[in-house]
Amino acid sequence: MAKDKGSSFNLKTPKGTKDWSGSDALLRDRIFTTIANVFKRHGGTALDTPVFELREILAGKYGEDSKLIYDLKDQGGEICSLRYDLTVPFARWLAMNSDVRSIKRYHIAKVYRRDQPAINKGRMREFYQCDFDIAGTFDAMVPDAEILRIVSEVFEELGWTGRYTIKLNHRKILDGVFAVCGVPEDKLRPISSAVDKLDKMPWADVRKEMVDQKGLDPEVADRIERYVMNKGSRELLDSLLKDETLNANASAKAGLEEMSLMMDYLEAFGVLDKISFDMSLARGLDYYTGVIYEVVTEGSAGVQADAPEAQKAKKGKAKASEDDDRSNDPTLGVGSVAAGGRYDNLVGMFLPKAQIPCVGISFGVDRIFSITKARIEREQKSNALRNSEVDAYVMAFGGKGFGGMLKERMEICQKLWSAGIKAEFSYKLKPKLPQQFKAAEQGAIPFGIILGEEELAAGKCRIKEMGLPEGHAEKEGVEVEIASLVPELQTRLAKKQEGAVSSLAAQLQGASV
Amino acid sequence: MAKDKGSSFNLKTPKGTKDWSGSDALLRDRIFTTIANVFKRHGGTALDTPVFELREILAGKYGEDSKLIYDLKDQGGEICSLRYDLTVPFARWLAMNSDVRSIKRYHIAKVYRRDQPAINKGRMREFYQCDFDIAGTFDAMVPDAEILRIVSEVFEELGWTGRYTIKLNHRKILDGVFAVCGVPEDKLRPISSAVDKLDKMPWADVRKEMVDQKGLDPEVADRIERYVMNKGSRELLDSLLKDETLNANASAKAGLEEMSLMMDYLEAFGVLDKISFDMSLARGLDYYTGVIYEVVTEGSAGVQADAPEAQKAKKGKAKASEDDDRSNDPTLGVGSVAAGGRYDNLVGMFLPKAQIPCVGISFGVDRIFSITKARIEREQKSNALRNSEVDAYVMAFGGKGFGGMLKERMEICQKLWSAGIKAEFSYKLKPKLPQQFKAAEQGAIPFGIILGEEELAAGKCRIKEMGLPEGHAEKEGVEVEIASLVPELQTRLAKKQEGAVSSLAAQLQGASV
Repeated sequence: MAKDKGSSFNLKTPKGTKDWSGSDALLRDRIFTTIANVFKRHGGTALDTPVFELREILAGKYGEDSKLIYDLKDQGGEICSLRYDLTVPFARWLAMNSDVRSIKRYHIAKVYRRDQPAINKGRMREFYQCDFDIAGTFDAMVPDAEILRIVSEVFEELGWTGRYTIKLNHRKILDGVFAVCGVPEDKLRPISSAVDKLDKMPWADVRKEMVDQKGLDPEVADRIERYVMNKGSRELLDSLLKDETLNANASAKAGLEEMSLMMDYLEAFGVLDKISFDMSLARGLDYYTGVIYEVVTEGSAGVQADAPEAQKAKKGKAKASEDDDRSNDPTLGVGSVAAGGRYDNLVGMFLPKAQIPCVGISFGVDRIFSITKARIEREQKSNALRNSEVDAYVMAFGGKGFGGMLKERMEICQKLWSAGIKAEFSYKLKPKLPQQFKAAEQGAIPFGIILGEEELAAGKCRIKEMGLPEGHAEKEGVEVEIASLVPELQTRLAKKQEGAVSSLAAQLQGASV
Repeated sequence: MAKDKGSSFNLKTPKGTKDWSGSDALLRDRIFTTIANVFKRHGGTALDTPVFELREILAGKYGEDSKLIYDLKDQGGEICSLRYDLTVPFARWLAMNSDVRSIKRYHIAKVYRRDQPAINKGRMREFYQCDFDIAGTFDAMVPDAEILRIVSEVFEELGWTGRYTIKLNHRKILDGVFAVCGVPEDKLRPISSAVDKLDKMPWADVRKEMVDQKGLDPEVADRIERYVMNKGSRELLDSLLKDETLNANASAKAGLEEMSLMMDYLEAFGVLDKISFDMSLARGLDYYTGVIYEVVTEGSAGVQADAPEAQKAKKGKAKASEDDDRSNDPTLGVGSVAAGGRYDNLVGMFLPKAQIPCVGISFGVDRIFSITKARIEREQKSNALRNSEVDAYVMAFGGKGFGGMLKERMEICQKLWSAGIKAEFSYKLKPKLPQQFKAAEQGAIPFGIILGEEELAAGKCRIKEMGLPEGHAEKEGVEVEIASLVPELQTRLAKKQEGAVSSLAAQLQGASV
């Protein structure tokens, strides 16, 4: 642990935190905007809660991980802690506002965990979560299906088409399977958590853990294997609906019926083809009561279950290295970029009379950011990694006796800003032309607006598209009337955006992983 | 101070903090977006710093107010505190990144002060600041003028046209005035802070404070009056430029020359008419070294200096009531909604070799929010205070035998979402028509999409604009082909937005205060 070095001045951010600036901040901001726009399209309303809560609000909600909560110093008055996630503050808000009987809320904000940071792996003490939740009593599976529609819209608009899978399961089915296979009541939780490891361990290892470490009857383990190794879609569900043993269990039957409804609705929403009904998905958190889901992508996946050799090599290492595989956000499983499920009993922990069923999703933005950035860098889509999004750089050519035409440059900028065009100019009285071109190039600004004394006297200036190849007809720019500069530039900007950079999706759509 | 009531459960947010939800959150979000768009138009890049800093970074930066800093508990490791503003973290970042020799950065984030909260007055312990700063060595007054152009764009786009004034002064002019009038060196700071009170106290009271409390020679006070009571524009500057006594002082002369340049540039930027050169503006913070400015608006002003009677009545009260006039954000003066200036020496406090001149502005979003909300409520612009911005509510009429056409409603929603239209539907299998209408009305959703069995069988549905008066030709809605539902609805949405709700400016532009 880094201690203060005597009285020397420590010019750094606290351990496990970092500054976000430049192209990283811009790209992350665009990811936030993309996600928030989807949330709003589905009627989501923003909820913003304080960054700290009374300590007693967080107490008893996170089990063993409570030790990772940041406390504020007691400076007189209330005892507070930094929030650990966005779900508990939402539940606290619902309990406080018990007149609200239904809401779709979203919250994009930082959370805090005094975990051992691993900055290279993206595990931080301060990181963002993007949550969308639907609270209220409704007909079964309708809001649940809309959550998965939201998931698919987010990843489609991030340009991940064809590169993500939504793994889906149901707690009631899982409970039914364990009951039918003969798992004793007291082993339900440990066996469930062993099954959840099937995304990073082969069955043989999971079975070993069940039998050797958790004392499960080997025959029970074999029965479990016949169920949890299944992945599929409707055909898997149909076969389970015909399984008489399973359907004799009330929990399994209820879960399968809900899953059947879910698939109908997912089909109506056009997202059934993104779903994998994965019977091994169990999810860590205790509070889920219905459907559970997790989004995985190739780029985010850990070691594949079908690569046992690599797996074994990995397993030989110390526990520390296994820990390194963990997500920044410990609520996400290995390799997942979003996760969630239905939790019907959490609000009641604050106020039993305010009990209200909820279903939601949390996007792991830091991991989505890392994968997106790596892809952009691999494909050298430099436009996507600019520091700002300036459209035009207004520059002067000549003007020795006139102070580099500073006021003229300012007036042109004013016209552009008033029309909503993003523009910059040199803050020097007499900047040299190469300096101005360099500034425009460094900012990857697409257009230069060039002022010359003679042209200006004739009420004209030049629009020059930056980076055109030698010999291009417009390499030296085109002369336009200053009166029509704004519409001329707008037309060119629109044309440029159409062809190339507009949304993240447009930028990343066709890209190969 | 609210203490824990034994073991009873305290369902609340910490003192001085609040949740933001519903129409308040939406309106505030739109204010943020408006401000951020202006920042980006001027080439601003986002900087996001951690919510807490090493305590030594904040130490010695806030003078007496340091006692208001929130500390984190010592849980082993580094000693940290929540940030008190966004300026010191920016200066720390510049010192850490000394290869960055120029940047335009913006930061919209929460800051924390353990002040006595007065929630009704909008003084909170957790509140937002919106900062834009330009760091770098440039020709005089060029970036300074752009900052004021940014200020005017923000308030124009918030719909405040004609309702705000940018008060402008220069620290060097003020220092020169005090020197020329004969203020002793050791009284400069207290006399400056007395002058700064002229926005809420008449001259007679300020003079009394100078002479009686601060021991200033009455003749010196009278000389000060002749300068600091002046407000104006170019004509004031011109008269000062002819003032030989003042121009004999090096500081005043330099300040006046910079102010002259500033006015030239403000004219080129088209904002000179928003400016009041106000010689009484002094600003509290010590670190300003050049131009200083503050934005005032009628709605935000405290007691006017020209209402001495009201003033006296006020003064009779205890100090506590005077404190109540303070802004949420103590860095803002009474009645101001934004403030800033040039500070050339702050970064050097972290690392002398990284010294870099800066100029910036901070918008007081909580106060801007309160004024904007009050205006909307006064004018009952109900559209502006919706909880969400949903465009269409998809509903079923009839369908008894078909489960309320849930899947059909889902399929229509899917079409709308895929086209980027914000849409909702009832989560009930068989919702009643009045319930669905009520939901659309409560959300102030402009269009209903009505599905009927017969129409659906013919590939049609109805678009109904909500809230049309009795007898309107389209009161019952218009029938459209489902295949052309999306373009039909988009046309209607565009038309509706054109006429009424689009930007905050459009909503609030013509409104009277």
